[in-house]
Amino acid sequence: MNLIKALTVGGLVALLATFSFASEPMRGESHGIAYPSGWQDWSTVAVSYRTDNNTIRVVLGNEVAVKAARSGDMRQWPDGAMLGKVVWKAEGLESWKAAKKPAGFVHAEFMFKDSKKYADTYGWGWARWVGLEQQPFNKGAQICISCHTPVKDNDWVFTRPAVFP
Amino acid sequence: MNLIKALTVGGLVALLATFSFASEPMRGESHGIAYPSGWQDWSTVAVSYRTDNNTIRVVLGNEVAVKAARSGDMRQWPDGAMLGKVVWKAEGLESWKAAKKPAGFVHAEFMFKDSKKYADTYGWGWARWVGLEQQPFNKGAQICISCHTPVKDNDWVFTRPAVFP
Repeated sequence: MNLIKALTVGGLVALLATFSFASEPMRGESHGIAYPSGWQDWSTVAVSYRTDNNTIRVVLGNEVAVKAARSGDMRQWPDGAMLGKVVWKAEGLESWKAAKKPAGFVHAEFMFKDSKKYADTYGWGWARWVGLEQQPFNKGAQICISCHTPVKDNDWVFTRPAVFP
Repeated sequence: MNLIKALTVGGLVALLATFSFASEPMRGESHGIAYPSGWQDWSTVAVSYRTDNNTIRVVLGNEVAVKAARSGDMRQWPDGAMLGKVVWKAEGLESWKAAKKPAGFVHAEFMFKDSKKYADTYGWGWARWVGLEQQPFNKGAQICISCHTPVKDNDWVFTRPAVFP
């Protein structure tokens, strides 16, 4: 009886593990960094629209990043801050053509602040997952860093946090 | 001794209540609707940039709204859904002029879905709070409804939820 009970419980655990796996697919590492769980529900740090490549973005942050962002004009992000830049191609809203809204999903890019762990890459871990399939980008953090060099005096971050009431 | 203890505890409670009050100022009702607590941390439904008035927006949703939005292309929002459109004037980012980013905060507008409570206004409660002071707008829901009439067949909502991976 105890054996049957144990097997039943074991079976349920295995079943739950399978469902859990199904709802959140395994995604590979980008530059040795694990896929950040739950970023889709993070709060807003800022938004942007790039006129040069017609993409529209939301910059999200984990709790550490959002707390810092909302505290005022950031010059230095605290350890533990995670920023995610979510990028879509932009197109006119059918019901209001002059409004640009998200169309095809492009990629999600992340910066993970840890001044010790990522000392060699200016205190940030740099990662990107591409397309709806979220394929990990692994062509080297140097590509990210090169593009961000103009904002090295802004702790390597382009985003200026939006003011919230 | 017990009286002193009771007074001390009472004093601490009063002090905490004062701090709590200070961190979240009382804001007046808009069209009879109470100010939605904690909307600043809601998750993203979509973003937009209006070329006609140079404003940039994020559309946030409470848990009910975000769950519905992420489920696919919305035609009907469930009761309990709350949508917040947060609007800023847009300006070029100093370090990347072609990127439009939030500057001065304009207002936060909300739609609260309750098909019974708001049956007279198409199932939605309509509210707006203006400026960083979040002054309640009380010129009548008809102003909101008039503007949203072109999207009455889209459950009165302009926003089409962005696709998230």
